[in-house]
Amino acid sequence: MQTYKLKNNVYILEGFTMVGPLEGKGPLKDYFDYVIQDDTLKEKTFEKAERKLLYDLIINAVDKAGLKLCDIDFFVGGDLLNQIVSSSYTARELNIPFIGLYSACANMTESLAISSIFVDNKVANNIVAATCTHFSSAERQYRFPLELGNQRPPTAQWTITGGGASIVSNIPSKIRIDSVTFGKVIDYGISDVNNMGAAMAPAACDTIKTHLENTKHKISDYDIILTGDLGKLGSEILIDLMEHENIILGQNYSDCGCMIYDKTEKVFMGGSGAGCSASVLNSYVLYKMKKGDFKRVLMVSTGALMSTTTSQQGDTIPGIAHAIELVYEANCDNFPNNKIIKAKNSKLKNSKTKAKNNKSKI
Amino acid sequence: MQTYKLKNNVYILEGFTMVGPLEGKGPLKDYFDYVIQDDTLKEKTFEKAERKLLYDLIINAVDKAGLKLCDIDFFVGGDLLNQIVSSSYTARELNIPFIGLYSACANMTESLAISSIFVDNKVANNIVAATCTHFSSAERQYRFPLELGNQRPPTAQWTITGGGASIVSNIPSKIRIDSVTFGKVIDYGISDVNNMGAAMAPAACDTIKTHLENTKHKISDYDIILTGDLGKLGSEILIDLMEHENIILGQNYSDCGCMIYDKTEKVFMGGSGAGCSASVLNSYVLYKMKKGDFKRVLMVSTGALMSTTTSQQGDTIPGIAHAIELVYEANCDNFPNNKIIKAKNSKLKNSKTKAKNNKSKI
Repeated sequence: MQTYKLKNNVYILEGFTMVGPLEGKGPLKDYFDYVIQDDTLKEKTFEKAERKLLYDLIINAVDKAGLKLCDIDFFVGGDLLNQIVSSSYTARELNIPFIGLYSACANMTESLAISSIFVDNKVANNIVAATCTHFSSAERQYRFPLELGNQRPPTAQWTITGGGASIVSNIPSKIRIDSVTFGKVIDYGISDVNNMGAAMAPAACDTIKTHLENTKHKISDYDIILTGDLGKLGSEILIDLMEHENIILGQNYSDCGCMIYDKTEKVFMGGSGAGCSASVLNSYVLYKMKKGDFKRVLMVSTGALMSTTTSQQGDTIPGIAHAIELVYEANCDNFPNNKIIKAKNSKLKNSKTKAKNNKSKI
Repeated sequence: MQTYKLKNNVYILEGFTMVGPLEGKGPLKDYFDYVIQDDTLKEKTFEKAERKLLYDLIINAVDKAGLKLCDIDFFVGGDLLNQIVSSSYTARELNIPFIGLYSACANMTESLAISSIFVDNKVANNIVAATCTHFSSAERQYRFPLELGNQRPPTAQWTITGGGASIVSNIPSKIRIDSVTFGKVIDYGISDVNNMGAAMAPAACDTIKTHLENTKHKISDYDIILTGDLGKLGSEILIDLMEHENIILGQNYSDCGCMIYDKTEKVFMGGSGAGCSASVLNSYVLYKMKKGDFKRVLMVSTGALMSTTTSQQGDTIPGIAHAIELVYEANCDNFPNNKIIKAKNSKLKNSKTKAKNNKSKI
């Protein structure tokens, strides 16, 4: 029962994304709802900036979906900071029940998987699932203070500043959540914290293989299969590992970490962080699904589960990957009681940030 | 929908507990399955000892329930260490899907609440929900290295070494999970990390009040109402706060943090840590329910959601409390397909610890 096939119709009603200045210059810049120009968000610390980012993501996702906070039954989410403080302190401001999770950069799909099971079984009607990361708070917690100016090895990745919030709901939309697979923790013995892609690739392989077996789907059934943040090297390792399982990831495979930056940006193997798959899913993927360009999507966020303490104590890095399968509902507008949500201009609500509004093409 | 009333019969099939030497001398010593005499568990670091404790808890809970690891669909849990590494590294050894959570010392009831919803809706048949803490790993992560010999203020609590694992199942037992309430994050402005009870009491008050309203139950309907680890001061604050809501917590109210140590132990306001409510629930409470002494129990684990970073940056401490309601099923043995589980002697399975076996009265 590692894979759960939803019995009822559960949808991603809307998604909202915000990213930092660097991500806002990348190939997906036109898909994000909002690009922050000042990554401090006028806060005194990067940790408080990250918290503000998450709050703004949630408030705006709820608004974009045509709902109010009082319509939301639960906030389900987590983040990379110790004791998931960005999520907990955001939940403090929301006055809705909070279900805190942790699976590192796999948080987005873990949150969506739990949320969709809750909505499928009428535990809730509307849930906000959200996560984000901030480059500067992650750097100083996991690696070194930025002020030290440490060099990075070529296998390193770049924690994105940004994130996404999804409204999981029983209100129909064009994006239905079809099934979810919770991953196992897998460790192939990588101990280099600057090579996270390699540490997470085996977990991604295991989850994708399991999901395909349990749903009896083939790679070619999907318009796109996306991993969270394996980066360039990790993706190549995943392709190799899958080949050993006689599964050929073709042109329809991509990785959010490889998509979010372009080659002129000095980000080594690409983007990482819980916000990486969260922002790509809730912008590019949902946009393509709403248009009908993607009809079936397998989204597999990937997480590296070490801490600085385990690394210092010589432990290797376990990985995890949780998968959700999304299906395009062409006839959504014909559903009874359908509440048609009009895409709004990306005007940021409730935020004191005076950053330039991103003139999104969406 | 903050409270979910389970539609089907979902049970705590078994629970298993292990505690450290200090807890093993306390008033509940005869209820614990196993008392560790050497709190390093023969590991090189306290963090690795904590991880071993959690692994042993899970393996032995599964065994005590008469199941095998392959019968378990998910491990749902978290712990207090940064990036919940005790849980993640334990999950690595189990080869079952892992759902990582974080709500600090409210982890036990958060895990049980999610697990029971999964079993209720046939997402899973058997889930192990588990958490634990280790005094020495918590001290050096949250406060000071033990070697410094810092003094503690009188409002401080003592993170317990120990924990518990529950098997949540559709196989009948005498302990049925009736309903669950997920809490909101509440912050009354306490910033003293040596006064966690005060920081968590408002969240406990809110969750108990909400649970009573939603289930239409009265305080007197319960044989015992237990909070997680408010400690002596926090419990008194909770009693006051509830009085302001016109709810009188009577003789049937207690707090796991107050129960686990006796007055001769220098633990100030009492026990704390995710393992506190986990070990009291899975030993004393389950034992009393199996005997029929407790027929209806409200278990409310409580968590303080700060991190050392938020404290350093001047933030106050938000609290959360999740509740589960347990009901005694007198006629359990008459259920069809009932698998009668015989309580085993507390012989530790798969552990290399050569600690003295606790001659439990259970």
